[in-house]
Amino acid sequence: MTTTSRREFVHGAAATLVAASAIATPLAASEEKTVSNTAYDYQHVPAPLPFAAKALNGISEKLVQSHWQNNYTGAVTALNLLRGRLKQALGDSNTPAYLYNGLKREQLLRTGSVVLHELYFGNLGGDGKAGADLRARIAASFGSFDAWESEFRKIGQGLGGGSGWVVLGFNQKLKLLENYWMADHATAPADTAPILVMDMYEHAYQMDFGAAAAKYIDAFFSNINWDTVAQRL
Amino acid sequence: MTTTSRREFVHGAAATLVAASAIATPLAASEEKTVSNTAYDYQHVPAPLPFAAKALNGISEKLVQSHWQNNYTGAVTALNLLRGRLKQALGDSNTPAYLYNGLKREQLLRTGSVVLHELYFGNLGGDGKAGADLRARIAASFGSFDAWESEFRKIGQGLGGGSGWVVLGFNQKLKLLENYWMADHATAPADTAPILVMDMYEHAYQMDFGAAAAKYIDAFFSNINWDTVAQRL
Amino acid sequence: MTTTSRREFVHGAAATLVAASAIATPLAASEEKTVSNTAYDYQHVPAPLPFAAKALNGISEKLVQSHWQNNYTGAVTALNLLRGRLKQALGDSNTPAYLYNGLKREQLLRTGSVVLHELYFGNLGGDGKAGADLRARIAASFGSFDAWESEFRKIGQGLGGGSGWVVLGFNQKLKLLENYWMADHATAPADTAPILVMDMYEHAYQMDFGAAAAKYIDAFFSNINWDTVAQRL
Amino acid sequence: MTTTSRREFVHGAAATLVAASAIATPLAASEEKTVSNTAYDYQHVPAPLPFAAKALNGISEKLVQSHWQNNYTGAVTALNLLRGRLKQALGDSNTPAYLYNGLKREQLLRTGSVVLHELYFGNLGGDGKAGADLRARIAASFGSFDAWESEFRKIGQGLGGGSGWVVLGFNQKLKLLENYWMADHATAPADTAPILVMDMYEHAYQMDFGAAAAKYIDAFFSNINWDTVAQRL
Repeated sequence: MTTTSRREFVHGAAATLVAASAIATPLAASEEKTVSNTAYDYQHVPAPLPFAAKALNGISEKLVQSHWQNNYTGAVTALNLLRGRLKQALGDSNTPAYLYNGLKREQLLRTGSVVLHELYFGNLGGDGKAGADLRARIAASFGSFDAWESEFRKIGQGLGGGSGWVVLGFNQKLKLLENYWMADHATAPADTAPILVMDMYEHAYQMDFGAAAAKYIDAFFSNINWDTVAQRL
Repeated sequence: MTTTSRREFVHGAAATLVAASAIATPLAASEEKTVSNTAYDYQHVPAPLPFAAKALNGISEKLVQSHWQNNYTGAVTALNLLRGRLKQALGDSNTPAYLYNGLKREQLLRTGSVVLHELYFGNLGGDGKAGADLRARIAASFGSFDAWESEFRKIGQGLGGGSGWVVLGFNQKLKLLENYWMADHATAPADTAPILVMDMYEHAYQMDFGAAAAKYIDAFFSNINWDTVAQRL
Repeated sequence: MTTTSRREFVHGAAATLVAASAIATPLAASEEKTVSNTAYDYQHVPAPLPFAAKALNGISEKLVQSHWQNNYTGAVTALNLLRGRLKQALGDSNTPAYLYNGLKREQLLRTGSVVLHELYFGNLGGDGKAGADLRARIAASFGSFDAWESEFRKIGQGLGGGSGWVVLGFNQKLKLLENYWMADHATAPADTAPILVMDMYEHAYQMDFGAAAAKYIDAFFSNINWDTVAQRL
Repeated sequence: MTTTSRREFVHGAAATLVAASAIATPLAASEEKTVSNTAYDYQHVPAPLPFAAKALNGISEKLVQSHWQNNYTGAVTALNLLRGRLKQALGDSNTPAYLYNGLKREQLLRTGSVVLHELYFGNLGGDGKAGADLRARIAASFGSFDAWESEFRKIGQGLGGGSGWVVLGFNQKLKLLENYWMADHATAPADTAPILVMDMYEHAYQMDFGAAAAKYIDAFFSNINWDTVAQRL
């Protein structure tokens, strides 16, 4: 829905990329070009962190760097490689449909990882203070802002020790602002615009907090960039 | 526990079974009302079929009726009942977070079922002929319209004998029109607007076609309402 | 790629469609042969139905035949083909581990389908009457035989409209006889011997019962071969 | 299959699971008692680590302690609490089957976590050197011992950054020794005896190795207790 949030990200992390040819330098008109490219040829350019890796409050530079480098750009690399495999498999009449779907599952999973990580880093780097308008908007859906926060945190705690995401999203069909539990990168609420995204994969906190997921959730909340959240909404 | 809510919605459903345009254009008044309700109190009113159950070409009235009645409105009932349980569980300090998430998983699943079924019925009832503009738009992403259709069908065939969906969606983050494989109601591409949705749960075809999923896919294509698809895009 | 293997197995299947006891008592010779083969070369021969397709009470010959032919032997075909792909992918140093796992996931899924279908057909074809010993054994774990049956049926009803299995299994680690809900062919209780297996994929009942899963569950219970169940336990 | 492996674990943790003294004395009659209890009343006693937490080569005491304490005994606690909820829900006629299954899914997941963690800790604490007999047995299924190890490691690497398990198991139906990819605690190969189990949840390595899953896999291999593995087989 909100195209503005994307611009924050579209800046090459070219310096850290292994294969310079695989992920080219970002063009100003890359968006138009992307649309005219076929879905199979598209190569995603990793979005740089929208804040300095050491800027977060209570989440270490080392963890943030590893998270961005290994988990996020790893997903981008995988997704880019995958398109070649999809094209090849589609062009091979010996590919059974169920094996093609194995690749499409991988595409769904990696796409989810790329998209959700960009949204996640995009809603960090702030001071954790939500403006009055936004608080009122959320309170209108959840009874109170605290009720919303309480449910969002509870979902996060329940995901401790596993892999998943918590999303505050606007469901376009139900016209509802809701919190959703997501088991992994492939689960997501259909037809829903993500507004605030929290990564509960263990790589988002184990290095700093061990198994203490609740402490990570505290740190996450203190770093939310509510301006970005407001723009998305 | 709250079996009363079921009764409310069944009556509500019956009352709105007239307006054929209910899916595409929700009433302005109801939208406001929905947003002002809290997320826990919201009760969804089933959208009527946007076409006569007997109107489809090669898919029987009996199957369509059963699909709408048992699977779709069953999901609405479940989702409505679920909100009461969520509210109750949130209010009970003895609810461990992992058990709360069991309810949230169910909410994600039922929400997916409700949303995807509405989109599915919403893109049926047409003559299966895509306009030139739409064909060109799809061809721009997939190389050709046929290439798109070929992949969409292949994903569907690979889902035969199981449960899932095929979705042509516009990924808001990647700015890409893509086909996605979805394993069940809970999987979905994050931050993606569904454009065309095909139900591959066996209840969408077994009654008419047995295990012959390919014949169902043919029938699905001949009934696509491309005008709706164009509006979504 | 190796479409030839499919042909081999179909003929193998036809050749063995005689031995009614093939499921319950595998030949000693074939077992040795299997073990000496490598895991990648193994080709599974479909087990014939251990009862006549028309022999079931309230489940039609057409459904049983379609279930065995399309869903069960389809899974065998897929699993056999898959081994060649796994071998090829392992031998190709360009195969990323995450893509190899896509094939391994498919192997887990198809293996589950093959194994569970054989157990399912293996525990049908009886008169539905459990002997006193078995009833007592089950009652010891569940309070009463009726309590067990009630939970087993409830899990089945909850799976109506989707894909999954209900299993009464003996958990080797917990030393417990328990009922388990299984979402699809890939989910299963770890280290557990299946004792009684009920298929709740829609292809197990839609053709005869439409969405009326409860009627199918009644029919399933009236056809249980409790002698087989007792042997497994 | 092997009932012997369990004895290693069955040692009461009594009431206090917090202190390191949780590793306590065995209740000789606990096994019989368990079987006579109903499935709903069973309360699992955490199995102590079968080796000193500091004894592993290259995996820190802190990580092992956190893994056992937070993830494993956390799962035991959850599973024990869950049985009360299951009993309550079964006894309440207002519980819809799909909500009951939400609890059963949680039971499947937690049971998997408990069982797999016990098998995992049970096959660690050794010197990583497989005996000649076992190597020959594995080689017979995989072509060579190295081929087996290579696939097992590859599956593990592909799970890096997510949640899952790698299992070498003996499939009772196919009579095959195979490696399996498992996505989470709820996925597992049906009717298969686990022989060697590797935890690939990030809590198994992030604290020591960050995102470097391959280094953890090296460490895992150097600590395998092959005697336990041989007993299971």
